[in-house]
Amino acid sequence: MTKINYQDIIQDQMPVSKKLLTTYYKLGLHETELILLLQLSRFADEGNHFPTPFELAQSGSFSEEQAASMLRKLVQKGFLSIEKNDSEKTPISESYSLEPLLEKLYDEDVSVITRDEENIGNIFIL
Amino acid sequence: MTKINYQDIIQDQMPVSKKLLTTYYKLGLHETELILLLQLSRFADEGNHFPTPFELAQSGSFSEEQAASMLRKLVQKGFLSIEKNDSEKTPISESYSLEPLLEKLYDEDVSVITRDEENIGNIFIL
Amino acid sequence: MTKINYQDIIQDQMPVSKKLLTTYYKLGLHETELILLLQLSRFADEGNHFPTPFELAQSGSFSEEQAASMLRKLVQKGFLSIEKNDSEKTPISESYSLEPLLEKLYDEDVSVITRDEENIGNIFIL
Amino acid sequence: MTKINYQDIIQDQMPVSKKLLTTYYKLGLHETELILLLQLSRFADEGNHFPTPFELAQSGSFSEEQAASMLRKLVQKGFLSIEKNDSEKTPISESYSLEPLLEKLYDEDVSVITRDEENIGNIFIL
Repeated sequence: MTKINYQDIIQDQMPVSKKLLTTYYKLGLHETELILLLQLSRFADEGNHFPTPFELAQSGSFSEEQAASMLRKLVQKGFLSIEKNDSEKTPISESYSLEPLLEKLYDEDVSVITRDEENIGNIFIL
Repeated sequence: MTKINYQDIIQDQMPVSKKLLTTYYKLGLHETELILLLQLSRFADEGNHFPTPFELAQSGSFSEEQAASMLRKLVQKGFLSIEKNDSEKTPISESYSLEPLLEKLYDEDVSVITRDEENIGNIFIL
Repeated sequence: MTKINYQDIIQDQMPVSKKLLTTYYKLGLHETELILLLQLSRFADEGNHFPTPFELAQSGSFSEEQAASMLRKLVQKGFLSIEKNDSEKTPISESYSLEPLLEKLYDEDVSVITRDEENIGNIFIL
Repeated sequence: MTKINYQDIIQDQMPVSKKLLTTYYKLGLHETELILLLQLSRFADEGNHFPTPFELAQSGSFSEEQAASMLRKLVQKGFLSIEKNDSEKTPISESYSLEPLLEKLYDEDVSVITRDEENIGNIFIL
């Protein structure tokens, strides 16, 4: 039996926001959209900052067309942006940025609103 | 405007396996099941090792009953186990363990099989 | 031979800033001081936000007195602060905060200065 | 004032073993050696798997010669190994592997010994 490589296990981990897991549904995201955002984060972690809908559809239950449609909706709803990198040395390249999502999670104003919504929620539950 | 606390952002991250994101669908998991497993990981990270279906349903599109049903299926399919902790000091407590899932991901034999499946996949694509 | 628990290995990891490892010496920190700051981060990760000099000296080459002296210096030099938590329910408790260190690392103005210093450094090297 | 990029802060973090921070001194490592091992981990994280002593000395209090000497000692004491990667496509390249260190941390037999040592330590302290 081959020995397990600890380094491989450690390097296989990427950071995911716990607040995103707690609030994605309140923010208006469905489970499949959340997974798509995590896949974008995974591709970026591996150096691919602009994966195609085909690449994104490779590891999920959704098709290439559904991936393309979800990406469009995520940009429209302000969870995702497309950055143009026009450095001198290379041809213009594009990359997805999850910064809009992280701003929704971490900017003070937003988190205050979220907290209020939670209170309203609690009133109805109690 | 309040200043952002860097420490809070860093501590909000938890580790998620990239291999899990690449292989969950091949392993037989649906997006919602994957999110449920990530939620178990999040609760464990926060010290709650046996969240109720109600707690799990709080932040997703699924109901308490659907959460309970998914948990049962995940145990049956060997992705999740329930550990009994019968230490002397406290009453018997239970906790979910994601070790079966991690064994599917990292044990050599399994990864070899996965690699074969990928080759088969490639043949059909090419 | 006992089987290795993947979960334990994953949960044994804590996040450390790569920029801190690149810049600690430029920021005026010595190796032992850097380790002390990492130990504070480790204790916080385990729920102890105000470890004693004795606890900090347990796992290093330095004594309890040296740990106390380093803590004092780190506060004076603005890498560390002591926060008073006067919530109603509990007696006043104190905790170390690494926020001043993270502000040195991540706030724009500081990073600009750092970049200038690097340029000066480069001039001398070239 | 420029806005802080959350993504940059998150991507600036790398995983470090808490058990390493607790046990490095017992394992026979000094603070500067521990930092050198963390620097190797940082370089690997950034894609450089065989940094030179010069590169390693850039961000610490130690010289190029001291870095080279420490690397040699870490290999001799079994904390570090040098892997030869003789793949067909490229010229033979070398890389540092921290696997020996991780085996010292995580392999069962070793951790048992460590626990015994801790008990002995406690007896003397009490």
